[in-house]
Amino acid sequence: MSSLRIAIAGLGTVGAGTVKLLQTHKDLIAARAGRSIELVAVAAREKNRDRGVALSGYRWFEDPVALAADPGNDVVVEVIGGSDGIAKKVVETAIAHGKSVVTANKALLAHHGADLAKAAAAKGVTLAYEAAVAGGIPIIKLVREGLAANDVRRLYGILNGTCNYILTTMRESGRDFADVLAEAQKLGYAEADPAFDIDGVDAAHKLSILAALAFNCAVDFGAVAIEGIRHVSALDIAYAEELGFRIKLLGIAERVDGKLSQRVQPCMVPADSPIASVEGVFNAVVAEGDFVGTVMAEGRGAGAGPTASAVVADLIDLARGQTLAAFGLPAEKLKPLPALPISARKGCYYLRLMVVDRPGVIADVAAVLRDGDISMESMLQRGRSPDEPVAVVITTHETNEAAMTAALSRIGKLGAVLEPPRMIRIESL
Amino acid sequence: MSSLRIAIAGLGTVGAGTVKLLQTHKDLIAARAGRSIELVAVAAREKNRDRGVALSGYRWFEDPVALAADPGNDVVVEVIGGSDGIAKKVVETAIAHGKSVVTANKALLAHHGADLAKAAAAKGVTLAYEAAVAGGIPIIKLVREGLAANDVRRLYGILNGTCNYILTTMRESGRDFADVLAEAQKLGYAEADPAFDIDGVDAAHKLSILAALAFNCAVDFGAVAIEGIRHVSALDIAYAEELGFRIKLLGIAERVDGKLSQRVQPCMVPADSPIASVEGVFNAVVAEGDFVGTVMAEGRGAGAGPTASAVVADLIDLARGQTLAAFGLPAEKLKPLPALPISARKGCYYLRLMVVDRPGVIADVAAVLRDGDISMESMLQRGRSPDEPVAVVITTHETNEAAMTAALSRIGKLGAVLEPPRMIRIESL
Repeated sequence: MSSLRIAIAGLGTVGAGTVKLLQTHKDLIAARAGRSIELVAVAAREKNRDRGVALSGYRWFEDPVALAADPGNDVVVEVIGGSDGIAKKVVETAIAHGKSVVTANKALLAHHGADLAKAAAAKGVTLAYEAAVAGGIPIIKLVREGLAANDVRRLYGILNGTCNYILTTMRESGRDFADVLAEAQKLGYAEADPAFDIDGVDAAHKLSILAALAFNCAVDFGAVAIEGIRHVSALDIAYAEELGFRIKLLGIAERVDGKLSQRVQPCMVPADSPIASVEGVFNAVVAEGDFVGTVMAEGRGAGAGPTASAVVADLIDLARGQTLAAFGLPAEKLKPLPALPISARKGCYYLRLMVVDRPGVIADVAAVLRDGDISMESMLQRGRSPDEPVAVVITTHETNEAAMTAALSRIGKLGAVLEPPRMIRIESL
Repeated sequence: MSSLRIAIAGLGTVGAGTVKLLQTHKDLIAARAGRSIELVAVAAREKNRDRGVALSGYRWFEDPVALAADPGNDVVVEVIGGSDGIAKKVVETAIAHGKSVVTANKALLAHHGADLAKAAAAKGVTLAYEAAVAGGIPIIKLVREGLAANDVRRLYGILNGTCNYILTTMRESGRDFADVLAEAQKLGYAEADPAFDIDGVDAAHKLSILAALAFNCAVDFGAVAIEGIRHVSALDIAYAEELGFRIKLLGIAERVDGKLSQRVQPCMVPADSPIASVEGVFNAVVAEGDFVGTVMAEGRGAGAGPTASAVVADLIDLARGQTLAAFGLPAEKLKPLPALPISARKGCYYLRLMVVDRPGVIADVAAVLRDGDISMESMLQRGRSPDEPVAVVITTHETNEAAMTAALSRIGKLGAVLEPPRMIRIESL
């Protein structure tokens, strides 16, 4: 069979990693794919930068859109990034020219996934994006094909390695957020501008893609409730441990009465749950299907090697003729599911208050909770220091988020409560 | 598109579970597969047994081979089991009649995988077997497609839920093997004749299939070194915990200098390794690829629901037209890899001796190890009781299995050593 001619738009970490993989495993890939996968062209701005791979054998495009339109290649790998602008134009151009696209671009899919899936379907080409979610873990394939016989009820995961590294290091070292973030930046585990990661946006991109796939609906990034990890303190992590939990930034998608709940939040998870033991830069996704039960997949969520592994797995699928609708159903059937707002969450909560240590404070807090029909499960106040704020930690039985939000607002206004109360959701996994 | 007509040979737990899944999710499956998957015929011996599912709508065959030959169905699901006899005949007959086969039969594939793959390839049909390994975990798809861009160096896993349940319960309860096995039999987690599971044969079947897939070679079940869990004692489990390990029955396949090492053995794994936290009836498989790094998948390895999930995932792939060579390469390219014998293993070892508590015993043991060029890493002897045997536990630095076997034979002959020494391999994962 003739070889599949590949063009790569973008030669950052992932692009260069993909070139390296295609060079290293040329023969292995040809044997497995049944035909050779031939890199023919690349596009990037600076031609003379050293990227650690030989690029002289490939046609060079300064303009990635021209590369996408060029008839000399069959498949375009888009690894430029960004939800709009050039990356979107590259993908749209390739599809318009009847080419299949492999992309690692979660932002693009989170914002335009349904439209791009429709455009690809209209042209009869494939939009593949294994590398966009959880790096090297073949989670797209696992959900779309491996669990295709199941009605998935809930899916959740650790979808951002930077956050998981920071939370793990905070727990192991007892150090505080800012300190650990600075170290992560030095080690290259966090970007110079870390907002996308630590504010939960990156994880939310990935969650919205997984939710569309698991629940056969249109990607609805706008409906994801997002809370990052900036406010997670060493104190909360220590209390979590004492209470038998670990704090993880989870993306959780769940279907409740025909509505879709999507949220990315720091959560307390039982310390002995499988997801709690996923540490450092590792990612993991858990899917709960009605026949299969619980399946978890764990691996490296980022980096040149793992991401290239996912990109090239998609290319091998294409070369083998294994092509599927982007979100598992014909694109015209992908409708948004009505969103379940975060205020409808039902579950348990962890609260930490910094209070003036004087008689009656606990009684005031307890009264607010009672008025909100919120039942306390435990209360901890350690140490006494009349001159300093002391921490009061409360866990609740199951209640609903709206009641909790109202109670928190009232508690925050109590005279003896010195800082805005900290609330972290407790998840039963 | 016309519907895909399915026949199921065998109506035990898995067969009935598959019927139930196909009935429950008829519409969901049709939407995802792009065509309906229609169960048309079943075969089993006793027609009147209550299997918890309605069977009146399907053509009934008493002879599963006749069902396999019948032109009224397109795909045969073989869930009878057994490496030879009727199951083999059903699969061969279906293939000979130009039908694709979906099977959950690990014994059949372990013994005849390469031949059946060739037969299927010759007829241009598909041999699918996701359900044969690790139940509901889509590990066949993950290795063959998800990690297709990688040179896999090592693959290992917990492949038998019965053994993992027994080992987990022994550790949690401190009880001994025979006692926990009896309980597992009562709870339905172990068969009345448990030999296949607890002697490691079932795990070895699965390992040989995974190894063929990961290393693109012919299945070579005969080359698997197999040791079961009958000899694992509560004492060893307690010592493992003290030393920072857990004992797991692992299947390990590894390529070393172009040779293939395959073994199923109780192993000591670091207590903080991800595989150590896979407990109870759960299975897990870890694959190490050169680009992706370490990927682990965990889930239920048996049971009606998980196994049916895997069977129907294969059926959906077939209905979608997603078909691949059984072991990822054209069948004629599948050659056996030369086997690396277990005697060539290099690694660390745990030894437990029951000795007479008198001066000089340790010196004698240490002398044997020294003569075999085996370096001790630690030695433990707790308690003293001149009238009873006492346990001496030794861990070694890296050595080779041949030296260890020779040393164990000499140690077993020392007058003060009262029972055959127990040896458990320590794995660095």
